[in-house]
Amino acid sequence: MSTFMEEVSTRAENARRASRKLAFTKTPVKNRALEYIAADLVSQADAILSANRIDMDAAEASGMNPAMLDRLMLDLPRIQGMAEDVLKVMALPDPVGEFLEMRTLPNGLVIGKKRVPLGVIASIYESRPNVTIDISSLCIKSGNALILRGGKEAFNSNRILAELVANACRRAGLPEGSVEFIHSTERELVVYLLKMNHLIDLVIPRGGAGLINMVRENSTIPVVAGGVGVCHTYVDCAADIQDGVNIVFNAKTQRPTVCNALDTVLVHADITNVYLPLLAEALNAGGVEMRCDSRASCLIKESGYKCIQASNEDWGKEFLSLIIAIKVVDNIDEALRHIEYYGSGHSEAIISQDYGSVMRFLDEVDAACVYANASTRFTDGAQFGLGAEVGISTQKIHARGPLGLKEITSYKWIVFGRGHIRP
Amino acid sequence: MSTFMEEVSTRAENARRASRKLAFTKTPVKNRALEYIAADLVSQADAILSANRIDMDAAEASGMNPAMLDRLMLDLPRIQGMAEDVLKVMALPDPVGEFLEMRTLPNGLVIGKKRVPLGVIASIYESRPNVTIDISSLCIKSGNALILRGGKEAFNSNRILAELVANACRRAGLPEGSVEFIHSTERELVVYLLKMNHLIDLVIPRGGAGLINMVRENSTIPVVAGGVGVCHTYVDCAADIQDGVNIVFNAKTQRPTVCNALDTVLVHADITNVYLPLLAEALNAGGVEMRCDSRASCLIKESGYKCIQASNEDWGKEFLSLIIAIKVVDNIDEALRHIEYYGSGHSEAIISQDYGSVMRFLDEVDAACVYANASTRFTDGAQFGLGAEVGISTQKIHARGPLGLKEITSYKWIVFGRGHIRP
Repeated sequence: MSTFMEEVSTRAENARRASRKLAFTKTPVKNRALEYIAADLVSQADAILSANRIDMDAAEASGMNPAMLDRLMLDLPRIQGMAEDVLKVMALPDPVGEFLEMRTLPNGLVIGKKRVPLGVIASIYESRPNVTIDISSLCIKSGNALILRGGKEAFNSNRILAELVANACRRAGLPEGSVEFIHSTERELVVYLLKMNHLIDLVIPRGGAGLINMVRENSTIPVVAGGVGVCHTYVDCAADIQDGVNIVFNAKTQRPTVCNALDTVLVHADITNVYLPLLAEALNAGGVEMRCDSRASCLIKESGYKCIQASNEDWGKEFLSLIIAIKVVDNIDEALRHIEYYGSGHSEAIISQDYGSVMRFLDEVDAACVYANASTRFTDGAQFGLGAEVGISTQKIHARGPLGLKEITSYKWIVFGRGHIRP
Repeated sequence: MSTFMEEVSTRAENARRASRKLAFTKTPVKNRALEYIAADLVSQADAILSANRIDMDAAEASGMNPAMLDRLMLDLPRIQGMAEDVLKVMALPDPVGEFLEMRTLPNGLVIGKKRVPLGVIASIYESRPNVTIDISSLCIKSGNALILRGGKEAFNSNRILAELVANACRRAGLPEGSVEFIHSTERELVVYLLKMNHLIDLVIPRGGAGLINMVRENSTIPVVAGGVGVCHTYVDCAADIQDGVNIVFNAKTQRPTVCNALDTVLVHADITNVYLPLLAEALNAGGVEMRCDSRASCLIKESGYKCIQASNEDWGKEFLSLIIAIKVVDNIDEALRHIEYYGSGHSEAIISQDYGSVMRFLDEVDAACVYANASTRFTDGAQFGLGAEVGISTQKIHARGPLGLKEITSYKWIVFGRGHIRP
């Protein structure tokens, strides 16, 4: 057995053992750990920044692109933001122990579901070190033990953050092994980890499509995955034109590097003359590159704005940058077909004042989040009132859309009998 | 591409296409299909029995064991029972379209979850032909398209039942492809099917541990699995002795071939003198073979009943027959440790009149269903008031315990905005 296998096995067993105690750990103890994490983040900011500096230097030297560098980078405001987020999780109600559907059956058996932690969660993530703190705080609050496997490029940042978390857990009295950080960096260890379905209850990959597919293909542990968002907004012939401009502009530009940012806008042919020039003006001012089908392209160029011809690959592409694809459709049916074919089941929107079109769109689009007259950028645990999120699921099993605390729990059936036997 | 690959691909694509329409099919249409299935089962009973006769003859000739033969066998009462079960599913409320957690956010966005079908479910099952009807009716009711892959030994029975279902669906007006039955019998087709995560949303294996492990190891599609039940009952020192005898006897003998039947009884050392002779008397009269640890063995033999020494493999074994393992434990801690180590997370029970012990057992045992003073035989969708079940899940993701209609649905977030953009 190689060194990394030994490390992964030991950590998984530690986490499993810890999970059994964590399941009964009282809320105040879990909250105390979160309080310590928040305080330590601020008081140890210098050490965290130094560790991050090592990662940043190496990344810059390796020629990492600016978007990736930005994900990797920590500064004091970001550390303070992380600490505030931990306190927000602390303030949320503890999901564990809630009773659901408790009732008395005709035969007198009293049965119901009690919410319990999942057990052990493994998180496999890429460059953003704040994920270390995010996922740790959500797992601690929900009583799950956690195994962290971060990206190589953020190793020094992740290690110091994970040590901080483990230390806070220890002082608060959580069981040893509640949060385990894998130090080995071999790529093969992930595949090894993904076969440990006897010790790990759920894997949450956070990163690009490559990571997610690799995890899904290799895991014998259940996976909740998502994150890839090819998001559409259909601007109907009955759209409020100003809403159409504002919402598309917001969904594309408010934070273009994230999964709920808009990728393709579908415009009903009847409103292109009025709408496209206004949209092009706004997007152009916002520095957005427009990739258009031929109909949209003609109109936008006529209005005096630059745009380029969309290639086939631009439909169904997650741009994660200031690029938008624009296509003219003849009716809502064409829009629905386009979304069905190219969408990734993340977030889709219709802009329309026509009641029937809105209701049809909400019904027929099969995605985690379907919007009427709002920006897809709202797909987010905090925005949805869940307090925080572990990720966004684009699958239908277990949980869909933003994953909050409840979504990383399970339940068990509790049955109170009085000598009941089955007839 | 081989013939079976073509068949599987075509059927999966048909099911996918059907699933999009099924998601909006109104309840009365789905109920009409169920009504036709129930009626056709009765009116075509002769043809079904003839088809089953072919399977039974082949099975008998191949020397299949009596328990397996019993699972395979259909007769008129069983067919009538199947028809009645379909009508029960018809009478259940349609889970699709229910709105959950609908609310207005402080910014005025109205959001909530709408229950929707999962999409396409694949069911891979072994010898019991009634599964064909059971799963079909649950999928039809919940708006899921279904791909059926039954055991080779029940091929003729399954084929006629699946044809009956497809025909009823057609007459009722459900989309073509709603229920697809795979005719090819190659073993390799299952592995091929299990990689179709772009077309299939959930796989439900129903059968022994071998099948379930094979599915879990090969599937890139989410799996909800269970069925393997190593069930324990701990008879505490504060047990009502008569309850202890009745419940253990019921849990072991009422239907020994199923997953919620009792396998191991753990007896507190303080009550062995009183309890074990009574238990042994009952079990002996019921024809149950007792495999005991040395302490239990002594007492049972002293009472004049036969028992054999348990081997190490008897702990943690699912007997599925009239065999029980009996072990004496010194306290509840030892019982909890034994269950944690040997249990399969299915159904576990405590018999005790001590409040503290009951509450501790219910808290600490990590299983789908945890019982106080009742028989584990109650773990069942119908018994729990879910109306029917697709199976019993022993995993924690998505759903745990009996899987009813709700458990084969997902949800999507619906957001009503009025020009909302994210600040």
